[in-house]
Amino acid sequence: MNLPQFSAAKLSRFLPMMVWAKAYTRADLSNDGLAALIVTIMLIPQSLAYALLAGMPPEAGIYASIVPIIAYAIFGSSRVLAVGPVAVVSLMTAAALGKVAETGTADYATAALTLAALSGAMLLAMGLLRMGFIANFLSHPVIAGFITASGILIAAGQTGSLLGIGMKGASLPELLHGILGKLSDFNWRTALIGGLSLAFLFWVRRRMKATLLNFGAGPVLADVLTKSGPVFAVAASTLTVWGLGWAEKGLAVVGSIPAALPPLSLPGLSPNLLAELALPALLISIVGFVESVSVAQTLAARKRQRILPDQELIGLGAANLAAGFTGGFPVTGGFARSVVNADAGAETPAAGIFTAFGLAFAGLALTPLLFFLPKATLAATIIVAVLGLVDLSILRRAFGYSRADFAAVAGTVFVTLIFGVEAGISTGVLVSIGLHLWRSSRPHVAEVGLVAGTEHFRNILRHKVVTNPAVVTLRIDESLYFANTRFLEDLVLERTANAPDLRHVILMCSAVNEIDMTALETLEGLNHQLKDRGITLHMSEVKGPVMDRLKRTNFLWQMTGQVYLSQYEAYTALTARR
Amino acid sequence: MNLPQFSAAKLSRFLPMMVWAKAYTRADLSNDGLAALIVTIMLIPQSLAYALLAGMPPEAGIYASIVPIIAYAIFGSSRVLAVGPVAVVSLMTAAALGKVAETGTADYATAALTLAALSGAMLLAMGLLRMGFIANFLSHPVIAGFITASGILIAAGQTGSLLGIGMKGASLPELLHGILGKLSDFNWRTALIGGLSLAFLFWVRRRMKATLLNFGAGPVLADVLTKSGPVFAVAASTLTVWGLGWAEKGLAVVGSIPAALPPLSLPGLSPNLLAELALPALLISIVGFVESVSVAQTLAARKRQRILPDQELIGLGAANLAAGFTGGFPVTGGFARSVVNADAGAETPAAGIFTAFGLAFAGLALTPLLFFLPKATLAATIIVAVLGLVDLSILRRAFGYSRADFAAVAGTVFVTLIFGVEAGISTGVLVSIGLHLWRSSRPHVAEVGLVAGTEHFRNILRHKVVTNPAVVTLRIDESLYFANTRFLEDLVLERTANAPDLRHVILMCSAVNEIDMTALETLEGLNHQLKDRGITLHMSEVKGPVMDRLKRTNFLWQMTGQVYLSQYEAYTALTARR
Repeated sequence: MNLPQFSAAKLSRFLPMMVWAKAYTRADLSNDGLAALIVTIMLIPQSLAYALLAGMPPEAGIYASIVPIIAYAIFGSSRVLAVGPVAVVSLMTAAALGKVAETGTADYATAALTLAALSGAMLLAMGLLRMGFIANFLSHPVIAGFITASGILIAAGQTGSLLGIGMKGASLPELLHGILGKLSDFNWRTALIGGLSLAFLFWVRRRMKATLLNFGAGPVLADVLTKSGPVFAVAASTLTVWGLGWAEKGLAVVGSIPAALPPLSLPGLSPNLLAELALPALLISIVGFVESVSVAQTLAARKRQRILPDQELIGLGAANLAAGFTGGFPVTGGFARSVVNADAGAETPAAGIFTAFGLAFAGLALTPLLFFLPKATLAATIIVAVLGLVDLSILRRAFGYSRADFAAVAGTVFVTLIFGVEAGISTGVLVSIGLHLWRSSRPHVAEVGLVAGTEHFRNILRHKVVTNPAVVTLRIDESLYFANTRFLEDLVLERTANAPDLRHVILMCSAVNEIDMTALETLEGLNHQLKDRGITLHMSEVKGPVMDRLKRTNFLWQMTGQVYLSQYEAYTALTARR
Repeated sequence: MNLPQFSAAKLSRFLPMMVWAKAYTRADLSNDGLAALIVTIMLIPQSLAYALLAGMPPEAGIYASIVPIIAYAIFGSSRVLAVGPVAVVSLMTAAALGKVAETGTADYATAALTLAALSGAMLLAMGLLRMGFIANFLSHPVIAGFITASGILIAAGQTGSLLGIGMKGASLPELLHGILGKLSDFNWRTALIGGLSLAFLFWVRRRMKATLLNFGAGPVLADVLTKSGPVFAVAASTLTVWGLGWAEKGLAVVGSIPAALPPLSLPGLSPNLLAELALPALLISIVGFVESVSVAQTLAARKRQRILPDQELIGLGAANLAAGFTGGFPVTGGFARSVVNADAGAETPAAGIFTAFGLAFAGLALTPLLFFLPKATLAATIIVAVLGLVDLSILRRAFGYSRADFAAVAGTVFVTLIFGVEAGISTGVLVSIGLHLWRSSRPHVAEVGLVAGTEHFRNILRHKVVTNPAVVTLRIDESLYFANTRFLEDLVLERTANAPDLRHVILMCSAVNEIDMTALETLEGLNHQLKDRGITLHMSEVKGPVMDRLKRTNFLWQMTGQVYLSQYEAYTALTARR
């Protein structure tokens, strides 16, 4: 654990901003400015939509996209990552908050601040303690399965809003039950607007660009128009609802959004609330971090830039703390917006800062225009966005590759759909780690013999080798530690049980990087038991650090045999001796 | 998972009794009978004492030692293991039940039945699913630390009973607070009886045998008398209290115990109760199993017998289920009683069955004699028994051996003492697994070179080897899986970053037993990134099963380089090519 020393050089490690801000050029400014404009336009409907997905008032989505972006720009290591509310984390937020407060209440909003601040503090602590490695415990198939299942849950949940049915639920059974129980709320106007928005947005995503190019539009124009698709949908549906007066006829609209800058807000800090939100905050932190780092790495690789995972923890931690104190909710680096930002030519995190200003302006000036924006249109934008995340082929690919990976991904998908996001991601992590531990509790051990005419020893089952009935050599292919040491003991005792000519057992430790205390005690026991049977125990090719540790115990004195530097030396000495 | 097929041969695997019962001789009968007599005498006070420790009425201790012993005799694989209430499991029982009911209430007794049955069902399930390996995840230092800390907790708790202070608490701070708050309950008669019992029992344990031998007693007589020490203490203190009429003067006695056979009892099965007791039942199952198996293995090794861990799970599961349906509480194989049983000459589990009959007789006929037995004497027997478990040297030994083992054992001891048994054992397991995962997330990778004149490749840092600036060979000393694959990627990218002459990277996979899907994806990414830099990626010495799996993917097609059978072949081909 290295705590920061405050010198300028060190400081720039913790403040990547100091590096790029010093070299900032006029060209950077114009590139960043254009990228910020495009991202701002894209983020206005998206921020509102994800806020509703998280169960928050729409303005919270705007707030969560302002100060957190600036905080990340200062501390983050990616040049183009765009931070803010994203689909999966918003879903996890709704699931976590749904257990502690009622949607729409002040308690709910306060709990959201607490969740963001708690997650921020955790990320920051992990970053300072250089614990970026914990992200490694989410295996690729598990995260892919989790995101797919979350996408399905989100799409299913938004289907309700699309039909005018206000429904809640953290899992497929709850969502289906919610839809069936409220079918009478069906509103044809909402469904019409929602359905048209959905069809239009799918067309934008799949066909619009090709169509525009066919009609002779230039590629840049086609690209910009395609990216503005959601804005058209928002504008058209808002005008329709306003013109036809449908808001008075039961069609849910966004309604009045206070025209304000992000407020200074204080997260709730009651011990009960903190205790209840600790696990969700941890899961949100890890999922958000893993998602964000993978986006950041993909984009950095294009430009041969580097992402520092520990610095990313600090950047995301700062962003979430900022969200917790400025009326937001948990945020992370988003895929779609970051890609748009990069494609639009963003050169430095200044683009993020400009985006924040753009959204602040939108929050102050444009919100009255969004009064008649139908929630169904926002639901349609979410559905189109998340269906891009759904990739069930991961199940097939994992099945084709290994049973363990398949078990982890299938368990994650199934549990996420049936029991919700927290249970799902926990299952994924636990199944992955459990399967790994189970496998490592069975270390690979091969009986080896001498390849004639060489000094090599190879597996007797796979190679033609010379053996001697008085000497058995077992090559241990893994470190010995508490989980696998009993297996080794059983194996040695079994191999030596019915071998009347056997005099020596050599444990070849060329791949043993560690012998922990449990393994040491097992070796002591093994030594005793073999001694009782008149068999001596030897070791060969013990690595330096392992040997140093063994020398601190009295095991080497108790051992009936010797430690040989090389296996060949051991084998020739023991076979000659006979 | 193999489910049993009902043939006689298979049946005897699940019913070890069928093996020994068939070959039962008259000599076995007399040996087993004598051993049963001695164990019965020893168990009468012990059963009562551990029942009180678990917060149960005294008769529950007798019941828990009757049918469970018979169940274990039928299903267990050890010939001499004596099953019943033991100190650590009784303490864990009290801690678990204290959270769901008040001591002495009917709810408490019902919850005890549930805890035993739940633990029995879990053990049985683990046995049928052959999950004996889970015991491996309790490392030796952790279990040693846990038992030491539990012994201290038990001794501290019983000190209250010894002084006449009825106190409760699941951790040292609670116990100390309890003593300080109730000092006014101090009863000098209780303290006198308790103190004398304690002193006498310590003398019995440390000195009695030597003294008797000095006075010319034969070794067998000395041994039998020493083992009966607790019975003398019980008899003498009971007579004293009866004779002086101290029971009416505030000295706590065992009181009336119903003279009865074990009742048929039904565990509580409310979902709430089951949910609250699930985790404690799991911890009790694992701790009880590990303790019991280690006792059974120690005793079996003496006689060259074998213990089958999965069968032990079934035996202990049956015993605990029996306890749950016959008025008991969780049981496991006890060290002291099993050693006495073995030393007294028990040949088969029939000794256990005879012990059960002996205790049933005691429960029916002798309980009136125990009315005036002071609880302080029972507390003294517990203290003497558990102080034998306390071995703080494990902390020193672990400290001398490795930081990881020390962290696990120190964490276990500290958390057990301060926060209680469940938190303690959980901490031990989690710290052990966490440290293991952390280590395995940094796989050992060595850059190797050719030992001149041989076909061997060795670490360039430790040996004098030939290298070539165009070729880097990295020997990976661990399986590649989700937790360590990112580390490998960083390492390869770093090593290849500033090497202008580098053309080929060879991953030498001689110690890689597995490549999981996450690792495969990382290798794919690595291949791409190296390709961008004009470096080809090769592999050598890939094991058969790993190769089979890689062949099912398209990675081998994408890979810029080749897979070579031997590292020497790879090196000569690539250096020649240049």
